[in-house]
Amino acid sequence: MGSGIADGAESGVIGSDRVIPQANLTVEAVRLTPVLIADPPLLNTQGVHQPYTPRLVVEVVTEAGVTGVGETYGDTAYLRLAEPLAEALRGRRINELNALETLAEAVCGDPSSVSDRVDASGLRGVRTADKLRLSVVSAFEVACLDALGKTCGLPVHALLGGKVRESVEYSAYLFYRWAKHPVDGAPVDDWGAALDPEGVVAQARRFARDHGFTSFKLKGGVFPPDQEIAAIQALAEAFPGRPLRLDPNGAWSVETSHEVARALDGVLEYLEDPTTGTPGMARVASATPLPLATNMCVTTFPEIEEAFTTGAVRIVLCDHHYWGGLRNTRRLAGICDAFGVGLSMHSNTHLGISLAAMTHVAATLPHLDHACDTHYPWLTEDVVTERPVFTGGHLTVSDAPGLGVELDREALRALHERWLADDGTLRDRDDAAAMRVADPTWTTPAVPRW
Amino acid sequence: MGSGIADGAESGVIGSDRVIPQANLTVEAVRLTPVLIADPPLLNTQGVHQPYTPRLVVEVVTEAGVTGVGETYGDTAYLRLAEPLAEALRGRRINELNALETLAEAVCGDPSSVSDRVDASGLRGVRTADKLRLSVVSAFEVACLDALGKTCGLPVHALLGGKVRESVEYSAYLFYRWAKHPVDGAPVDDWGAALDPEGVVAQARRFARDHGFTSFKLKGGVFPPDQEIAAIQALAEAFPGRPLRLDPNGAWSVETSHEVARALDGVLEYLEDPTTGTPGMARVASATPLPLATNMCVTTFPEIEEAFTTGAVRIVLCDHHYWGGLRNTRRLAGICDAFGVGLSMHSNTHLGISLAAMTHVAATLPHLDHACDTHYPWLTEDVVTERPVFTGGHLTVSDAPGLGVELDREALRALHERWLADDGTLRDRDDAAAMRVADPTWTTPAVPRW
Repeated sequence: MGSGIADGAESGVIGSDRVIPQANLTVEAVRLTPVLIADPPLLNTQGVHQPYTPRLVVEVVTEAGVTGVGETYGDTAYLRLAEPLAEALRGRRINELNALETLAEAVCGDPSSVSDRVDASGLRGVRTADKLRLSVVSAFEVACLDALGKTCGLPVHALLGGKVRESVEYSAYLFYRWAKHPVDGAPVDDWGAALDPEGVVAQARRFARDHGFTSFKLKGGVFPPDQEIAAIQALAEAFPGRPLRLDPNGAWSVETSHEVARALDGVLEYLEDPTTGTPGMARVASATPLPLATNMCVTTFPEIEEAFTTGAVRIVLCDHHYWGGLRNTRRLAGICDAFGVGLSMHSNTHLGISLAAMTHVAATLPHLDHACDTHYPWLTEDVVTERPVFTGGHLTVSDAPGLGVELDREALRALHERWLADDGTLRDRDDAAAMRVADPTWTTPAVPRW
Repeated sequence: MGSGIADGAESGVIGSDRVIPQANLTVEAVRLTPVLIADPPLLNTQGVHQPYTPRLVVEVVTEAGVTGVGETYGDTAYLRLAEPLAEALRGRRINELNALETLAEAVCGDPSSVSDRVDASGLRGVRTADKLRLSVVSAFEVACLDALGKTCGLPVHALLGGKVRESVEYSAYLFYRWAKHPVDGAPVDDWGAALDPEGVVAQARRFARDHGFTSFKLKGGVFPPDQEIAAIQALAEAFPGRPLRLDPNGAWSVETSHEVARALDGVLEYLEDPTTGTPGMARVASATPLPLATNMCVTTFPEIEEAFTTGAVRIVLCDHHYWGGLRNTRRLAGICDAFGVGLSMHSNTHLGISLAAMTHVAATLPHLDHACDTHYPWLTEDVVTERPVFTGGHLTVSDAPGLGVELDREALRALHERWLADDGTLRDRDDAAAMRVADPTWTTPAVPRW
């Protein structure tokens, strides 16, 4: 056999002279920068996106002067949790990631006492103290990984065990939308309205032309189901054989879900959160061969057992913010794999930092079987110096140290000043409030809506 | 709030000049060194340990000359799988860990075609091609992590997200045993025989005195259950309030398991693998409040779903060799945590390399609730320059780069020469064959034995 000991070979010398100096790993400062970013008037079952949406940029700076960046939701409740965690992280090390959740539990307090105003939570699944805290932890974890990668000279994917693909596929994220916000001075774009099958198909064609996407997801729950079925059928005709998804954010009853599943079985790649709650999802799943996906009934580790043992979902759409970071995303992937459940990625409005983070972790997952969601192409603003370019719907994963993104400090300053100037109405995402600008009678619809 | 942008702060510069040179990450050579190490005459339900047991030492050498070490089972089937993987790893990178399993699947072939002689497999749970391959992968993964840590200047625990404790608790691993092997020239030690409750208690006292262990596991399945119950009761009397475990390796029927569980409920911390197979374990579990642990019915990811959904086990004893390495150990821990199942660690006879690996990964797991098993104190030989020292039953996790162990090349050479000199009878562990030296009529007992 080919074994044996090579004469004269030396094992690598170990000793403290080879250890990274502690200063290079020690956190000297953490900067929290809330921003407001322009967002188009995208419709969903709860209302419409506000003209600006809050995000939080987290920077972790080591004593050696290396800065790592992360990003998460920017609503007030998240900011309030981020402040004590930022304070507690000083003096700790950027590689102490396994201790981050415990640290957050110890210092963040109960977020429910801080604010109940995360009104988009109906779109983000269960709202628990743990989940809010993990959403904050995620930005710190990504920032630490970015800093650690820059310190070691390794890309973030290498810190996660290495990429298994060179690029990550994303899906076009189609929305019913208005041409413009019903507010003077709101940001405008040239997409025009999309309120019927023709508008949705035209939007999809532009996404395909500009970014090469070959997989399409429609945010539903906006119009009665027959109209959304018609939109999917129009997409299937326009893009034969291409993966299509529909996501009404739990707007339907179990019975309505059955009807839609019957109409779209064989047309959709998967149906996402047709109804709310794991028991309802399990009832829908039991009656259709169409795979069900979720980013609402499984958004925390404690929700996994019921969903997986009742067959409620075949695909979990992971949002690394919800789950507490990139390493927890890999943990979720490992659970899904052991239970034969597929994995893909959810997206909420996010900047280029989180897009880079998503791409790094996605590149490390052997069993990522579906194109990931991203809102990113809708955005006209960012805090990174170079906007990522989709080619054939794919993003190439960076091999530069860390995430491979650089902060555009002028852009960050400008978006932070917008946040500072806001009177508070936009600092918490509230799609129903935005809808009331156009329709003063609007209230968040009860579910099931249909 | 404490947010804001510090004027003049610079994000860490990124660029190719800061990336680790590829040569530092590229595998130039892999050395496989099978060894035979002295092993005492420890008894189990299948027979007795042979005078020597095979292990495989894996060294991964980078183009920059850094060597990482790993260790796994050394039986012929494992060696045959390791050879093509060693060859395939040349030119690849030490941080491409997520691709290692796929690489092994591609190059290792079907181990069942190589050899059926892993006769200790009855003690190691299910024997599948995947599991044999993963047991080999584990040594390569550990060696790559060791090399990567030395290259980056980080301890292995930091590459796994950082330690959450400074030391890891181990349990005394008590065995019924003979005073010496029934073979001329076999290695001898001064432990004497332990074949009754008094002998077991004396052994435990020596372990407690020499290493400070406060948790005790008895390998059972050797004598009729009432004798082993008596041994546990004697331990409980000698060490009141201390965690005790009994592991008959599936030697009992469900009914016998019920009886033992009734006798030892409130005495044992947990009962390990009283009977074989998940359905049998579930039946035992359903009738006793005593927690059941396993390293036999859950030793691979595909076995998890049935065991966790039927309540068959409350604690999984992870062996990082079986599971494919330290990162998969963390993956298993993440699954256990989501399902409310406890985690601890199994041990088979292993050297200081694997003990260091176990200590690193154990230090990173927030929910490691039980002292880990280790055979290590039974060994008189090792391939590392410094034997780890247990203090109060704990090992301190190393902060040196990599695993923090150094190969003793003279010792490695000598143990490899013993392997080379063997005529083949000891190259595959066979506890029944060793027992036949004393009792020519011995055959591996059918289960349930009682």
